[in-house]
Amino acid sequence: MKLAVLFGGSSFEHEISIVSAITMQKIFKKTELINIFVSEKREFYLIDKKDMKSKYFSSSDYKKAKKLQLQKDGFVVGGMFGDKKVEFDTLLNLIHGRDGEDGKVASLMEFYGVPYISPRLEACALSYNKLFTKLFADSIGVKTIPYELLHKGDSRDIKTPLPVIVKPSRLGSSIGVSMVKEESELDYALDVAFEFDDLVLVEPFMSGIKEYNQAGCYTDKWELSIIEEPHKEEFLDFEKKYMDFSRDGKVGAADIDNIAAQKIQDSFKRVYGNIFKGSIIRCDFFEQNGDIYLNEINPIPGSMANYLFEDFEDMVVRLSKDLNFEQNIKIDYAYIHSIQSAKGKA
Amino acid sequence: MKLAVLFGGSSFEHEISIVSAITMQKIFKKTELINIFVSEKREFYLIDKKDMKSKYFSSSDYKKAKKLQLQKDGFVVGGMFGDKKVEFDTLLNLIHGRDGEDGKVASLMEFYGVPYISPRLEACALSYNKLFTKLFADSIGVKTIPYELLHKGDSRDIKTPLPVIVKPSRLGSSIGVSMVKEESELDYALDVAFEFDDLVLVEPFMSGIKEYNQAGCYTDKWELSIIEEPHKEEFLDFEKKYMDFSRDGKVGAADIDNIAAQKIQDSFKRVYGNIFKGSIIRCDFFEQNGDIYLNEINPIPGSMANYLFEDFEDMVVRLSKDLNFEQNIKIDYAYIHSIQSAKGKA
Repeated sequence: MKLAVLFGGSSFEHEISIVSAITMQKIFKKTELINIFVSEKREFYLIDKKDMKSKYFSSSDYKKAKKLQLQKDGFVVGGMFGDKKVEFDTLLNLIHGRDGEDGKVASLMEFYGVPYISPRLEACALSYNKLFTKLFADSIGVKTIPYELLHKGDSRDIKTPLPVIVKPSRLGSSIGVSMVKEESELDYALDVAFEFDDLVLVEPFMSGIKEYNQAGCYTDKWELSIIEEPHKEEFLDFEKKYMDFSRDGKVGAADIDNIAAQKIQDSFKRVYGNIFKGSIIRCDFFEQNGDIYLNEINPIPGSMANYLFEDFEDMVVRLSKDLNFEQNIKIDYAYIHSIQSAKGKA
Repeated sequence: MKLAVLFGGSSFEHEISIVSAITMQKIFKKTELINIFVSEKREFYLIDKKDMKSKYFSSSDYKKAKKLQLQKDGFVVGGMFGDKKVEFDTLLNLIHGRDGEDGKVASLMEFYGVPYISPRLEACALSYNKLFTKLFADSIGVKTIPYELLHKGDSRDIKTPLPVIVKPSRLGSSIGVSMVKEESELDYALDVAFEFDDLVLVEPFMSGIKEYNQAGCYTDKWELSIIEEPHKEEFLDFEKKYMDFSRDGKVGAADIDNIAAQKIQDSFKRVYGNIFKGSIIRCDFFEQNGDIYLNEINPIPGSMANYLFEDFEDMVVRLSKDLNFEQNIKIDYAYIHSIQSAKGKA
């Protein structure tokens, strides 16, 4: 199989997407990877395997690579003697944050008829906005942390007792997220969050919780990863999370009892449902007193959470088998014909 | 001003989008229109003003028009002597249903940096899925009709007493929607709805309600249309609604008391909020016993609901003044540089 890896993007997580894509080169042993980079300016470049090193991008050397155009059925290299199609079977959307996780890449691939692994548009909208995630989880009976909503310009007189977590409603990877322990820190934390979004969520900081990550997808059956208990710190900021994106080793399963594990797996399946078909996602849960809370959905997890799966490469191949979910709409102009008949024009 | 009108699309409402676009030719007096058609196969064509007739499309004559490619900053006509850009100031997304209302067009324009009038991606996802609309409305304190959710394959043992309205969760213009008065009609209505979606909403048919439409947008101020009471039938099906898309005359304001009107306007503004910035939408409300319920959001209303505005053309011009809401993200490779330094590679 030939798998195109799409990475970069106009995103605060552009650089960690590069790290994720470099990690993929080590993960895939049997699959040929075609690397397609989306620059800061949203131009597409075809990157040679030998150039898949972080410095190639940070030094702007990528500008010497072949430029691609996206058009009907795929990417083409423009040239003196017409366009040449870049051949691959499936595209893996590996753009973290904006462009990749907000639904733009899904829209582009869907519109131009490129088979792709990624949450579809609606699934992206649901997971990109933390408020929507909560509304959605609530509608399918999956618990989330209670929250307070603040709009830019609202009174900052919050009702949730300190300590609290302050989060912009959109964006992933802890960007703009702060923990507030004392009254005096609140204003600054809100300023930071409002830098990134008009809508900010304030959640109680829950102590005595455990954090568990569950990744998975639906191919022709459920394929769930091991449950991981991520290395616990009070709260992970962007720099600490960053290193996660280069992980390629396996990790051990969390030490978790069967009942809690079952609850996490059930919640994952409920969230994934039909909406996330075609994607490999990671859901981050909290556990407190036996209750499971969905903390967030990672629609394009760092390095695709490969390290949580026994058999990541083969799973990607299985997932690639059936990725076209959009209904084919035949336009027969029946209405226009009938209007024309009625008007005596046909 | 030059306004590009984008219409057609791979949508069940492809044909009514053509009707809407033809209507625009009559509405705009001072603005030059550039007509861009999206065919069934999702190819772009530049359509001459003289060819803006329904027969030009239904007869496939459009295939003789110039083909366009979408790329960075706009559309180009490919040719023997290189690409020539199609010049316009703003694009009006007039694709009803799939592609236009589901967020694909918004994604494409955003990705390629084309200024456009349309709900943005997230607003599309919210209004395209009727379940999400309800969850969203609920979160901002706007009432909607109570509902029951059915997944494909679920028991069809509904709890809502008849008569009920059965709707697929996605799609607009009443496609797949049925009214069920008797038990015996339920199965067929559900079959029809599940043809279009995996998720179906069942709502009680509310009698003794009034229906009111409110359109509007936010330019540098709120610009709300008159409130219309649409010609009332028990329930409008697709063919009856169709004719709405060719409306260009003015309609009279509904005979409605000030309190109800105020409630409708307030609800409209709450729904529109920041999320619908950059778009002209129509919200359809029900009124019963003084309570206002949001029935649906029309993110790309038929003929842009032009007939409800005093001053539609100038409003579009005002709206065009500020349409770039996405934050500019500067990629400086600071993280990659710092990793390289740490590794002694920089």
